[in-house]
Amino acid sequence: MATSDPAEFTARLALASADAAALGLDAVIVTPGTDMTYLCGYVALPLERLTALIISPGESPKMVVPLLEQPAAVAAGVEDLGIVVAAWEETEDPYGLVADLLPGARRIAVNDAMLARAAFGLRDAMPQVSFELAGPVIGELRMRKTAAEVAALQEAGAAIDWVHAQVADLLRPGVTEREVAARIADLILESGHATVDFVIVASGPNGASPHHEVSDRVLEVGDPVVVDIGGTMPSGYCSDSTRTYSLGEPPADFRQAFDVLVTAQAAAVAHVRPGVTCESVDAAARDVLSAAGLGDAFIHRTGHGIGLETHEEPYIVSGNVLALEPGFAFSVEPGFYLAGRFGARIEDIVVCDSEGVINCNNRPRELVVVDV
Amino acid sequence: MATSDPAEFTARLALASADAAALGLDAVIVTPGTDMTYLCGYVALPLERLTALIISPGESPKMVVPLLEQPAAVAAGVEDLGIVVAAWEETEDPYGLVADLLPGARRIAVNDAMLARAAFGLRDAMPQVSFELAGPVIGELRMRKTAAEVAALQEAGAAIDWVHAQVADLLRPGVTEREVAARIADLILESGHATVDFVIVASGPNGASPHHEVSDRVLEVGDPVVVDIGGTMPSGYCSDSTRTYSLGEPPADFRQAFDVLVTAQAAAVAHVRPGVTCESVDAAARDVLSAAGLGDAFIHRTGHGIGLETHEEPYIVSGNVLALEPGFAFSVEPGFYLAGRFGARIEDIVVCDSEGVINCNNRPRELVVVDV
Repeated sequence: MATSDPAEFTARLALASADAAALGLDAVIVTPGTDMTYLCGYVALPLERLTALIISPGESPKMVVPLLEQPAAVAAGVEDLGIVVAAWEETEDPYGLVADLLPGARRIAVNDAMLARAAFGLRDAMPQVSFELAGPVIGELRMRKTAAEVAALQEAGAAIDWVHAQVADLLRPGVTEREVAARIADLILESGHATVDFVIVASGPNGASPHHEVSDRVLEVGDPVVVDIGGTMPSGYCSDSTRTYSLGEPPADFRQAFDVLVTAQAAAVAHVRPGVTCESVDAAARDVLSAAGLGDAFIHRTGHGIGLETHEEPYIVSGNVLALEPGFAFSVEPGFYLAGRFGARIEDIVVCDSEGVINCNNRPRELVVVDV
Repeated sequence: MATSDPAEFTARLALASADAAALGLDAVIVTPGTDMTYLCGYVALPLERLTALIISPGESPKMVVPLLEQPAAVAAGVEDLGIVVAAWEETEDPYGLVADLLPGARRIAVNDAMLARAAFGLRDAMPQVSFELAGPVIGELRMRKTAAEVAALQEAGAAIDWVHAQVADLLRPGVTEREVAARIADLILESGHATVDFVIVASGPNGASPHHEVSDRVLEVGDPVVVDIGGTMPSGYCSDSTRTYSLGEPPADFRQAFDVLVTAQAAAVAHVRPGVTCESVDAAARDVLSAAGLGDAFIHRTGHGIGLETHEEPYIVSGNVLALEPGFAFSVEPGFYLAGRFGARIEDIVVCDSEGVINCNNRPRELVVVDV
């Protein structure tokens, strides 16, 4: 948790309840995952047994938990937040229990990551209810990071920057992507992250696949190397940053394209301020690449929100007309990908601030040319 | 994968298709997770972008993938299984694409672990369709382990047995549960597991909570210690085994109750054979404990299925009248829990075999009394 302050959780529960009321929802139901963690701090095991937080406008929040998990829920402090815990026994029907707690409900939203097993269990127990996604309620709350959450993202950014500061020393002709990645994973933990979430080391032609992870390919002189890494801090908040390296001088046309990419990424970051749309941030990067003939080589969106999950709202993509607000946190990561040849990407996590933009990643963005 | 044999995946896809036809389903749709891995070997990243395997009776299977992930899906060999890959671009609607592939569909089942985001996306794109869970199709296939899968579970069992063989040496007065657990986690990896899934070290009164994990409690002379550990092997198959230890002689009433537990666990394992119900295996353990006055202290079901997930079907619980078949694999793990005092559990993974039962865990089940 970025916060263990009960007042912050109580405020989030109250906001979710008010948003649910404004949307005409009778309840929001949330099963274990980052939405539950966000709302009440309880990190429940993702068991097949139903655990569900129930937020109904005008009522105390409730939590249905397996009897076995009741001690864990109470120890996590959910009762201190005014949540009424209802435990169910091994042979009881937990969906019927939820239905009993919501007599007369007609419209219920569930967390986007609820499993179909639970969603259909609820649907079948409450045939009169129309179910929808709670994204508009919880996703919007989670998008607006508090000062404590922004601080947690900055802490995560500083930790991953510390790792990137050591990557150049790991790159030399003759080592494999996998060997480099293993050392980076160790460094991610040494830097203070609780978990390593992903390590992409994409060298030479492998850089042309945005989601290439690692392979046994041996690094060669002249290779560009895309290094995209991230983890989760003890706070629960995630890091995600990409820098591109080169073993000696890269091909001349790579260097040329990379200079355009640096400009494109900077243009998108500079565009971030309250009131501009998500898609306009995407366009700010894309326009620069397109003007240089690289539009077709930029084959993914410009970014994704980040917080308790590496990928969450808002998405920085064409078609998303959502306007940025202070506290929105997301990646700005344009790239170019030329199949069979090479690729490159530059990625920072930024936070929209009333004054402009806070950059959580502060390593130089220029191509890091490693002496070979 | 326990198998990388395309013939086994092709057979699973054909069985799923035949089962879907028999149930009157127009399609089964599966998003990333162990169901997808089981059916086609593809370990897809659980991204917010939709990846979906579509099995329609009488047609070639299809897979809808984000354009970015198409190379990964192809590299995983899905096309070699006769799966037709349909890629969608960043600004396309993937749910509309699925709907276009299933004109006229009326009844569709989805994997139990599909996220509500995808399940509701499909529902909204196909308003004429009635959706249900695919558990009856895929869960039943997954319950019946093939010889290769049973071998993978035995391999996992042998690895976790190797860890239990060293636990007694880690237990001594003065160390904390957390310190013991950290060393056990290292051993789980050393034993050949790819990941550590859980490490429960529950000493003294902490043993009375079945899902206690670890704490900073210091082990004391006379403590019973419940050690419940598991991980996932490179094959994808899971281990899960519990043994109970004691630092020197435990309280006399603990010893008495534990002797009953050994008998109860053995009775349930001995009861396993084709044709008996899941609930009768539960009863076989429960009856022994109840006869000794410990029925109220056995507060959970006797077991859960295991395979590519630690918890899957079948569940060994009162009310489950499903009859065991050869190839069903599950835990047999009765326990007793006396709040404020102590608890104990013995857990083996067993496989129902035409000849009787295969035990994947073969460490002694008696209380391990550590010299102090």
